[in-house]
Amino acid sequence: MNTPDQTTEHAAKTSSGKLYLVPCPIAPDGEPRSVLPQPNFDIIDSLDYFIVENIRSARRFLSKAGISRRIDDLLFAELNEHTAPAEIEELLKPLAAGRSAGLISEAGVPAVADPGAPLVGLCHRRGIRVIPLTGPSSIIMAVMASGLNGQSFAFNGYLPVKAPERIRAIRQFERRAVSERQTQLFIEAPYRNTGLWRDLLATCSPATRLTVAADITAPDEYIVTRSVGEWRKLPVPEIAKRPAIFAIGI
Amino acid sequence: MNTPDQTTEHAAKTSSGKLYLVPCPIAPDGEPRSVLPQPNFDIIDSLDYFIVENIRSARRFLSKAGISRRIDDLLFAELNEHTAPAEIEELLKPLAAGRSAGLISEAGVPAVADPGAPLVGLCHRRGIRVIPLTGPSSIIMAVMASGLNGQSFAFNGYLPVKAPERIRAIRQFERRAVSERQTQLFIEAPYRNTGLWRDLLATCSPATRLTVAADITAPDEYIVTRSVGEWRKLPVPEIAKRPAIFAIGI
Repeated sequence: MNTPDQTTEHAAKTSSGKLYLVPCPIAPDGEPRSVLPQPNFDIIDSLDYFIVENIRSARRFLSKAGISRRIDDLLFAELNEHTAPAEIEELLKPLAAGRSAGLISEAGVPAVADPGAPLVGLCHRRGIRVIPLTGPSSIIMAVMASGLNGQSFAFNGYLPVKAPERIRAIRQFERRAVSERQTQLFIEAPYRNTGLWRDLLATCSPATRLTVAADITAPDEYIVTRSVGEWRKLPVPEIAKRPAIFAIGI
Repeated sequence: MNTPDQTTEHAAKTSSGKLYLVPCPIAPDGEPRSVLPQPNFDIIDSLDYFIVENIRSARRFLSKAGISRRIDDLLFAELNEHTAPAEIEELLKPLAAGRSAGLISEAGVPAVADPGAPLVGLCHRRGIRVIPLTGPSSIIMAVMASGLNGQSFAFNGYLPVKAPERIRAIRQFERRAVSERQTQLFIEAPYRNTGLWRDLLATCSPATRLTVAADITAPDEYIVTRSVGEWRKLPVPEIAKRPAIFAIGI
């Protein structure tokens, strides 16, 4: 079943809908036109089925994006950390029947640092074409603006919550950042940013470079890289409760 | 010198120019408006100094982007793999004097998989603000569209050219993809894509999932994920000489 031969795959590709990966703004009140190119709006306007991480925020985004259909005429299905694998299969039924869909995340690009990837994986298994659209990714923007190595980098998701595991993870990231010259990125629940900051300064070597990128694309965007030794001499930056990405490198 | 105190840093921030990270299309003949949002064009239009990986392609991009100044009135400086560290310092002099600059890569977002990062790093050391703009990144679009794990992934740049090192690198990526559930991405010079493909199919386990993402955002975009076992039963996809990103995962 997971091994479509070329004939059935070709059939699927010609008759089935497509899955568009539709980015939305990163900043909570971000204006869609400030971060998305025109073709995204044309594609959004051609769709009437959306698979979304959160229905409320997706409706708000589509309405701000100026979709010309009535929002109430659109079909929404939720895909989040509570969605069971069998339900993901269900979500694709309209696509098998020829209807295209848009996948929308809570913020930024879908299927990165969110629960969307298994749906995309299933599309490949079913021969459904997946089309990524351009939009803001806080991860790639943090790499760009960090000045750390952009030829080799890893995004590691959330750090462990418990202190000993967290310290161990920081040590591992730092070791890999140094030994492989691979920039290591990670995130934290915003209300834990200040605690993470203390752990980073206490754990890392003074020479290690540490980037914090908070509120990317928002008016109060703050992206600064310094050595840990320099950061230690300064007050904690104002990152409490702000969405932020952290990176360490050399 | 690399440790500005807060006073000098504040002075730098209020009087110095900013470095805008200006993405351009990925596809060789890509239309800027098809992948870049409106504010990028406004910012491009406000700048008269560009630090670029390749002057010819940057001029072509700015002209296609409809910049309102005469291209010949703009100041261009090249930053590529031949630029010495001392020259990078020179490039920032206009910024220290209050002039803002745009950093433009050969394709896609600057300071990722190109020689731009040291300039960005130096901006942080000099207290010059760095502002990333939204645009297409083939790396993040490959992650999005792969269906592989998007909660943990690494971009590893180019694979080694020589066969034994290349095979070893593929094995290491596969091991890490499995043991850490971290999607591993890499690139190859387009004329070597077919050779890399053979090495991937010969080296990886049949269960490993392998994505090829070629000509992202171009009309003949091709993004497909299958298990290595499935790929082995099919003809080599048409990736010869096409810009492509590869990813392995589970």
